[in-house]
Amino acid sequence: MRAVDLIRKKRDAAELSREEIEFLIEGVTRERIPDYQISAWLMAVVWRGMSSAELAALTEAMLHSGLVLDWSDLPAAKVDKHSTGGVGDKTSLVIAPVVAAAGLYVPMISGRGLGHTGGTLDKLESIPGFNVHLELLEFRRVLEKCRCALIGQTPEIAPADKKLYALRDVTATVESPYLICASIMSKKMAEGIDALVLDVKTGDGAFMKKQENAEYLAELMVETGTRMGKKVVALITDMEQPLGRKVGNALEVEECIEILHGAGPADLRELCDELSAWMFFLGKRTKAVSEGRELAAEMITSGRARDTFREIIRAQGGDAGVVDDPSRLPRAKHTAYINSPRSGYVTAIRAESVGVAGMMLGGGRERKEDSVDPGVGLTLEKKIGDKVEAGANLCTVHYNLDSRLPHAVGLLNKSFEIGEKPPPGSPLVRKIIGATETQ
Amino acid sequence: MRAVDLIRKKRDAAELSREEIEFLIEGVTRERIPDYQISAWLMAVVWRGMSSAELAALTEAMLHSGLVLDWSDLPAAKVDKHSTGGVGDKTSLVIAPVVAAAGLYVPMISGRGLGHTGGTLDKLESIPGFNVHLELLEFRRVLEKCRCALIGQTPEIAPADKKLYALRDVTATVESPYLICASIMSKKMAEGIDALVLDVKTGDGAFMKKQENAEYLAELMVETGTRMGKKVVALITDMEQPLGRKVGNALEVEECIEILHGAGPADLRELCDELSAWMFFLGKRTKAVSEGRELAAEMITSGRARDTFREIIRAQGGDAGVVDDPSRLPRAKHTAYINSPRSGYVTAIRAESVGVAGMMLGGGRERKEDSVDPGVGLTLEKKIGDKVEAGANLCTVHYNLDSRLPHAVGLLNKSFEIGEKPPPGSPLVRKIIGATETQ
Repeated sequence: MRAVDLIRKKRDAAELSREEIEFLIEGVTRERIPDYQISAWLMAVVWRGMSSAELAALTEAMLHSGLVLDWSDLPAAKVDKHSTGGVGDKTSLVIAPVVAAAGLYVPMISGRGLGHTGGTLDKLESIPGFNVHLELLEFRRVLEKCRCALIGQTPEIAPADKKLYALRDVTATVESPYLICASIMSKKMAEGIDALVLDVKTGDGAFMKKQENAEYLAELMVETGTRMGKKVVALITDMEQPLGRKVGNALEVEECIEILHGAGPADLRELCDELSAWMFFLGKRTKAVSEGRELAAEMITSGRARDTFREIIRAQGGDAGVVDDPSRLPRAKHTAYINSPRSGYVTAIRAESVGVAGMMLGGGRERKEDSVDPGVGLTLEKKIGDKVEAGANLCTVHYNLDSRLPHAVGLLNKSFEIGEKPPPGSPLVRKIIGATETQ
Repeated sequence: MRAVDLIRKKRDAAELSREEIEFLIEGVTRERIPDYQISAWLMAVVWRGMSSAELAALTEAMLHSGLVLDWSDLPAAKVDKHSTGGVGDKTSLVIAPVVAAAGLYVPMISGRGLGHTGGTLDKLESIPGFNVHLELLEFRRVLEKCRCALIGQTPEIAPADKKLYALRDVTATVESPYLICASIMSKKMAEGIDALVLDVKTGDGAFMKKQENAEYLAELMVETGTRMGKKVVALITDMEQPLGRKVGNALEVEECIEILHGAGPADLRELCDELSAWMFFLGKRTKAVSEGRELAAEMITSGRARDTFREIIRAQGGDAGVVDDPSRLPRAKHTAYINSPRSGYVTAIRAESVGVAGMMLGGGRERKEDSVDPGVGLTLEKKIGDKVEAGANLCTVHYNLDSRLPHAVGLLNKSFEIGEKPPPGSPLVRKIIGATETQ
């Protein structure tokens, strides 16, 4: 078999066999096929797409390029949630303790933020001492003890994805739903889970701006996961405005703690309940999704989710005191304010610009190598539909370096739209794909 | 400027600016952009194509990646011919001495054979002692003396093309009319010529099997060359059956010598006259193409083309005696015969299979690194339209190694189609693109 023939085949819109895809991924993993051939094949995939069989073969080949974890001896279902990324998208930090507190296992392997979107690992690392780099054996120990562990990518899990992603990033081949699906699903399937809830974001702050593209990706992921014998559901959720009110690493941890205390913004709470409920349902913890929502609420009001979060933080070396005293989290030194130019109603908040503003303050990464400043970020004082007076504070900016402020403020001034009437409300969960019950 | 952004732009079907294309080609030449980014961009070009402005910018950037020769002090027009490649396609060895004999300069830089097609350099090297590797200064001296020199690619001419072609070859990005056009035209424009006649082959033995694809490439090349201030014409010519009767390096030289002696097959002679005539016309040696045909014939009947051919061979270190005694050329040791299975008329000769058979005998290259056996090849004893009796010899196989024979014979047995009636004749020159006169 020769790589050039497989590239040609895909270029000419033919279907590669399972063996051919395995040959390519084996070649990537063992570095037997040069990068220039892989990148040409990747561009041909962006062009021609993939059949269901090819996508399944690709995902499985990437999955089996490394270790596949097996927790079948643990006495309850293993479930996880994955989000395609957004601004203020912090649900993992609520969901993981909520679901674990109710008895399911959550072996969650997360990523870092890039561009305008945040990442779970960066948020966790804003908790003093929290270690996301656990060895797999330690991951297992924390999972056993807390029913949840929150770590970053390890070299053992889907190494082909790591190599492919690095190449996609520099060859403009990131944005293929097939390659995105294989990347996400190979890593998630390696976690040894029984069920997966996908939060596929759409709107201004999402990678998939158009709902049809988000739905297409969701369908691919649900189909791929189901073929591999897992229970998978995808919720298409709104990312037109940031989720919740806080954007920035420590600020988002703080907002999650508010939620775990039964407070916090309604949209964030709603989405956390919804995603947890689906995890309970797919993990057979509840017989219906509606029952799952009640269970999620119970975990919060009873304080059991807070207890679990403290345990996880402690098990991973962090300062569990933040759960009861968020002032122990890092904070930016200075604040600035974005004032409303007129009276009226907030009709839009451009999520991508808000995310870029947070990145500009130092809270995110322009490039993968960049480090992040955990304390900086924004608090949205108004959200879509809120009434505002001229001069009222729309947004508080938390910053450390004066030099980073002007660009962020410039973006934020352009992020809010103020109209005369409040816009019609739009649902947070727009569609459910792959559902198997009437809720 | 970042390569990844330019790849993304082309992937999304946008037009790159001249500066952006120059950045890419400069990056290729100086090895500042890694191969994996270039190959992704190449695949995006195969996918999205190029605008006229992009193609012109690409061709010029490749042209200026190396030396551009200038023979403007030489006292007559500089003209060349380029063929896109075929089987038995040996016109260069006739045309170059014919056109030079009539007073024009022919600074011809040619390539080697690959796959089922032959290459001018391999044919020339079957002449004992003939050196195609002249330094540029020596190239100039031979050109001055003989009005023609026949050499191979040098590292100074369009180095970007050499690098790009090596990458295209292993990434299935050879077959883009835009990339083919830029590759051919950048090298030909670097030769310092005033006019170029393109022989764009179509049919079974050509790279462009479909005439519409050949015409499209021809139009791109004519437009690109014309934009760069050169006179360019393209003849779309038939490559359904091999050209002439001989296929193989020394065999083809022998057939060219027959033509230069006023003998040889009619189709080969017709195409040589036609291509020479256009070179005369574009090089302003004659006022009309028809007059050019007469001049070409005169160069042959007068023996002046033979004289020039002898001079070129001698100037490049070869045995000029072959022109009068072709038995001095290398010959294969053994012969075998392909017999007609029935009586009738030859209705088709599959040129590609014949070319592959020649390659299998050792006369061509499966891979670029392969060496060629100059003496082996085939003589087509019958061509399309010829009447045959059952058992008659269709083709003589000239071979050296017994082990190479069976595969070649197997292919040749399947290459000839015998029908009950002769097929309708088809013209050798199917279309002329870029012509500016009524012939």
